Amino acid sequence: MAGNTTGNLFKVTTFGSSHGTALGAVIDGCPAGLKLSAEDIQRELDRRRPGTSKITTPRGETDQVEVLSGIFEGKTDGTPIAAVVYNKDADSSAYKPFRNKPRPGHGDYTWTAKYGTYDYRGGGRGSGRNTIGHVIGGAVAKKLLEELDIQVVAHVTQVADVKAQHLAYSRLAEYVGQNQVRCADQKAAKLMEKKILEAKEKGDSLGGVVETIAFNVPAGLGEPVFDKLDADLARALMGIGAVKGVEIGFGFQLAEATASTTNDEYYLEGEQIKTTTNTAGGIVGGISNGMPIVARMAVKPTPSISSVQKTVDLEKMEETEIQIKGRHDPCICPRVTPVAEAAVAMVLVDHLMRSGFINPRHV
Amino acid sequence: MAGNTTGNLFKVTTFGSSHGTALGAVIDGCPAGLKLSAEDIQRELDRRRPGTSKITTPRGETDQVEVLSGIFEGKTDGTPIAAVVYNKDADSSAYKPFRNKPRPGHGDYTWTAKYGTYDYRGGGRGSGRNTIGHVIGGAVAKKLLEELDIQVVAHVTQVADVKAQHLAYSRLAEYVGQNQVRCADQKAAKLMEKKILEAKEKGDSLGGVVETIAFNVPAGLGEPVFDKLDADLARALMGIGAVKGVEIGFGFQLAEATASTTNDEYYLEGEQIKTTTNTAGGIVGGISNGMPIVARMAVKPTPSISSVQKTVDLEKMEETEIQIKGRHDPCICPRVTPVAEAAVAMVLVDHLMRSGFINPRHV
Amino acid sequence: MAGNTTGNLFKVTTFGSSHGTALGAVIDGCPAGLKLSAEDIQRELDRRRPGTSKITTPRGETDQVEVLSGIFEGKTDGTPIAAVVYNKDADSSAYKPFRNKPRPGHGDYTWTAKYGTYDYRGGGRGSGRNTIGHVIGGAVAKKLLEELDIQVVAHVTQVADVKAQHLAYSRLAEYVGQNQVRCADQKAAKLMEKKILEAKEKGDSLGGVVETIAFNVPAGLGEPVFDKLDADLARALMGIGAVKGVEIGFGFQLAEATASTTNDEYYLEGEQIKTTTNTAGGIVGGISNGMPIVARMAVKPTPSISSVQKTVDLEKMEETEIQIKGRHDPCICPRVTPVAEAAVAMVLVDHLMRSGFINPRHV
Amino acid sequence: MAGNTTGNLFKVTTFGSSHGTALGAVIDGCPAGLKLSAEDIQRELDRRRPGTSKITTPRGETDQVEVLSGIFEGKTDGTPIAAVVYNKDADSSAYKPFRNKPRPGHGDYTWTAKYGTYDYRGGGRGSGRNTIGHVIGGAVAKKLLEELDIQVVAHVTQVADVKAQHLAYSRLAEYVGQNQVRCADQKAAKLMEKKILEAKEKGDSLGGVVETIAFNVPAGLGEPVFDKLDADLARALMGIGAVKGVEIGFGFQLAEATASTTNDEYYLEGEQIKTTTNTAGGIVGGISNGMPIVARMAVKPTPSISSVQKTVDLEKMEETEIQIKGRHDPCICPRVTPVAEAAVAMVLVDHLMRSGFINPRHV
Repeated sequence: MAGNTTGNLFKVTTFGSSHGTALGAVIDGCPAGLKLSAEDIQRELDRRRPGTSKITTPRGETDQVEVLSGIFEGKTDGTPIAAVVYNKDADSSAYKPFRNKPRPGHGDYTWTAKYGTYDYRGGGRGSGRNTIGHVIGGAVAKKLLEELDIQVVAHVTQVADVKAQHLAYSRLAEYVGQNQVRCADQKAAKLMEKKILEAKEKGDSLGGVVETIAFNVPAGLGEPVFDKLDADLARALMGIGAVKGVEIGFGFQLAEATASTTNDEYYLEGEQIKTTTNTAGGIVGGISNGMPIVARMAVKPTPSISSVQKTVDLEKMEETEIQIKGRHDPCICPRVTPVAEAAVAMVLVDHLMRSGFINPRHV
Repeated sequence: MAGNTTGNLFKVTTFGSSHGTALGAVIDGCPAGLKLSAEDIQRELDRRRPGTSKITTPRGETDQVEVLSGIFEGKTDGTPIAAVVYNKDADSSAYKPFRNKPRPGHGDYTWTAKYGTYDYRGGGRGSGRNTIGHVIGGAVAKKLLEELDIQVVAHVTQVADVKAQHLAYSRLAEYVGQNQVRCADQKAAKLMEKKILEAKEKGDSLGGVVETIAFNVPAGLGEPVFDKLDADLARALMGIGAVKGVEIGFGFQLAEATASTTNDEYYLEGEQIKTTTNTAGGIVGGISNGMPIVARMAVKPTPSISSVQKTVDLEKMEETEIQIKGRHDPCICPRVTPVAEAAVAMVLVDHLMRSGFINPRHV
Repeated sequence: MAGNTTGNLFKVTTFGSSHGTALGAVIDGCPAGLKLSAEDIQRELDRRRPGTSKITTPRGETDQVEVLSGIFEGKTDGTPIAAVVYNKDADSSAYKPFRNKPRPGHGDYTWTAKYGTYDYRGGGRGSGRNTIGHVIGGAVAKKLLEELDIQVVAHVTQVADVKAQHLAYSRLAEYVGQNQVRCADQKAAKLMEKKILEAKEKGDSLGGVVETIAFNVPAGLGEPVFDKLDADLARALMGIGAVKGVEIGFGFQLAEATASTTNDEYYLEGEQIKTTTNTAGGIVGGISNGMPIVARMAVKPTPSISSVQKTVDLEKMEETEIQIKGRHDPCICPRVTPVAEAAVAMVLVDHLMRSGFINPRHV
Repeated sequence: MAGNTTGNLFKVTTFGSSHGTALGAVIDGCPAGLKLSAEDIQRELDRRRPGTSKITTPRGETDQVEVLSGIFEGKTDGTPIAAVVYNKDADSSAYKPFRNKPRPGHGDYTWTAKYGTYDYRGGGRGSGRNTIGHVIGGAVAKKLLEELDIQVVAHVTQVADVKAQHLAYSRLAEYVGQNQVRCADQKAAKLMEKKILEAKEKGDSLGGVVETIAFNVPAGLGEPVFDKLDADLARALMGIGAVKGVEIGFGFQLAEATASTTNDEYYLEGEQIKTTTNTAGGIVGGISNGMPIVARMAVKPTPSISSVQKTVDLEKMEETEIQIKGRHDPCICPRVTPVAEAAVAMVLVDHLMRSGFINPRHV
């Protein structure tokens, strides 16, 4: 029961590996009648594409999407939307030295332990390139969210020890777009960029934190007791490569708090019930309360670094060393923002459908 | 598509609410031939039962389990295991004031927003009492893990600002049992207990952190790209009431780190591949690597506190105030440890079955 | 991955065995706000209960249902509905001779082949008694169908070589209730009853055909290409014990036909699109067309008969003989009608929810 | 929750429509280490391809498959296998007259009722062409079955009123390949062919029966009480376009029988338990018993015929007439045999995995 499908009503199945023929996704459960074009998907793919700034890997992937099915006369028709990105010019030669010699921090060893084999070329399906599938699914999810006026924005709030200041949400998307780091705090963004370039220089890499916020989500999303909205968000975000922690709202800060200072009290704003604070990040008892949904994820430093590392030769079963050369992201946080948005968007659409906010037959 | 079932091959469906007739669980997918008795389940239920120490709520719930099906001549027979705990003497009168007046921090409002109705008595199904179902499922899961010599232990590592020292894992289970707080560091445990009693005195409550460790898990568990082992653990833990954050291994610490200092390098210990460090918490690329699995969760302060709180009367749609009296846990962390173990145990068994480590027909 | 759950959005999990402590079901996904009582379920259970006429087994099972959860103030509250029937006075002694000696036509051998063990007492979970769970689920499904004015009626159309005449549908439910055989054609009913009593006299048993019709189902139900409405009906009906064939509409008759005589042509009745004939049984391309849904199932003769039969002693691995004594249904068709209705009702509700005709949060 | 995925552990998701860009399938859950090539899939696709004999449609579809992922160095690697067939030269002009005028017997109207839109070109996704996806999935399933020495063969046993004689199974596959009708009884095959050509001449079409047999299936497959092996086979076969009935073993004949003459008694053949007869078609109590699995399906006459038919103009909402010209199969039975094999093969592999007969990680 391999886990390449996510979602219950809005189902996204992804396939493909870094150096195989193609990567792609099949989206099953998108209602008919949604305006959708290849360009809508391409726009999101371009946001995750590398080589667009000096702080990302210079690999020149073009990542052109082709839609194979599911669109009829400019709109979805209720049938599965299949979309593929063919791999071009993948150079596998650089990866030959790692055949049977798992790179620390990558999935090489664990995938081999599981499957008895591993496509060592560029990380195979364990590569960050598999998030092309996420982004395709997320692009369609975002189009559906637009119909309900729901917006999802991810931004980098921390790189190494540089933390962004918390800014008013109202202009978040605008601010995030103003720098390569995708940090809404322009001052912090500059420091982050500097840190990243220093790490790049040393052949090292940095971790960070990405926060994703969903605005205008209606109250009532989430299915207790196991398929809670926060549980599903945690699963989706933790499932992104390199993510090692997830928080909702004030998260781990609440471990140090008292209820008397952090309970979100209710008040009325016109006809609407709101909370005076949002320590809960928009989710209480596993169900959305109408406040902005706030989810943060800890991203570990990209494991591909240039220093010599110890490993084991799986064939000879003896200890050995490897050195990774090549073009890697010194900090994956900026490029992971569209993936985080995609992951959150897919969860939201799935729960909107489960809760009946989206007509499953046609919009 | 209500979410009261968890697991794919080892499926646990739970039901029941705080003040209804009964709570329980149906476990479908447990192989035949496993020695199992009601006592095995009762033992785990007794660990989550309140009223067993001065730092928990004094409510006197006996929580006797009755097994309705699935056991034949002392062993599971491959059919669903249904088990129930009837509610006794639940006193609903204390909850009348909260009818239509949602308590801050509880799911009262969000459940009403979703279902248009809410069983206000004792939190209904949103109550912590619904974890009786988790613990029943976990008890069966643990019996299966025993067959593979896998052990799951949860302990409290933080209460408010008191943090436990990291101890050697070898005697963890033993140390945890030596105090009421379920903290392996006895010194910290005393400070935690003091803090909890102070909060209780004030009618306030505290948050904390619970860490769960799984020993002896084989390499190769986890289904990329969406059903990764860490993703499923995050979902299971975040889905426990009051949990607002989840970390695997070094978690959020990795956001501040460099790969050169945190990549776990491989070495050989006899025939076994191990890592020199375990910043990954036993999971890389979504698949277990054979090292101990380490997952931490942030628990928010119990929202039931004695101070006056602002809320909204949902019927009259006007702002109002409530005051919660009654017997509540000043810090839920100790009582949540068996629930965390249950959640992790169920995820592990499900993945062991998905990966073929457990014969689905009979053990 | 044991298969004791059916449905995707309206999920019914059943448990229990013939001579265990109890049988029951958990229904997850029923919207809140539906008026429901234990009596609604009891009424359906009484229809499948044996011992109510001379053509069924004289076993005196009372089958009293107890609802454990999911109903609050007379209505469903969106949480799982758990209901149980405790077994009373089950006499297992009669089954001792069949321990390790599988009865021909029953699941004794195949269950043992699968699980390595088998609850030989009264057929264990393989017993027809497990349909108590189906009927509980169906009772709730029927209440939901009532809200949409959809009616499901099953009737016996054949017993051995006696075939009922096709009658106008309009008074079907009424006619079916007028005899013990549950055959709408009163003349045929008398012949069927005579045949059944003759078989009973000889210690033999008869097969038959049960037709289930669903009236007023809206067009648009069914999810191609795999979860078609007819595919799901076939699965649900074939899954009932003793069923060996399923037809939709004209079924196997269409194998002998030409399209020029059997294509259902369209016409307008007011604003409504109808077909002049209904050879398709209300389903085309896997999706309902608004005409009555017609599904028939072939029921094999009850395998428990009084003649000596050959079998194998599984322990000694040698050929042997057994003779079944006891109280068995000489033709299960009449008692299977409420089960067929339950199966069809559950499939319809599931598809109504999948197609958005029922609000998943509350009715 | 659109239904374009089938299987639980061996999951096949299909996509694409008759006149869209491409059709294809993604197979998730195939263990690593299975020898697989594009040729293995192409071979099965060629068997369902039209235009290969005078009794099928002369449409010249080449249906070349391209494998996009999941194969590494000649073997599956545990990641999803995606395969596509691009549509070539589809001529949509012939279908313009049917825009908004649903063809009787086709899904045109029901799909429109559901989705509010319909790709009228060549039946869209409702076209028989969507079975390309089934056959891709089935080709991989068959490769897995080969590893367990399990063989699946479908043959035509009836066309209109011509019924094939029952032949010994031992040379079934060989005999089926000796004529275009795919009927093992060569005499009947000739009569069938004659009937089909006569119908073709008249612009009419014929129904028939296809039987699928699986040899060497181990005892113990199937998950009661809802996911029984026969229930899943019924679902898979009924889900194939044009199928209106499914039988297991003696099927509807058992409705007329007595248990004393049809119960399959057990005997020993060496160490193996067998039944003297196989009226059950290899499945008792929903679980396989080790005898050959026998499933038959009723196929309705292809609805595309050349006579004038009544329908409704969905836009103008008035009654009208249409006449279908073009190249259609006068009897779809022969071409549906590889689809039936694929459907049965996928169900078997899924259940073999669910029952632990296939290692889910690698073969």
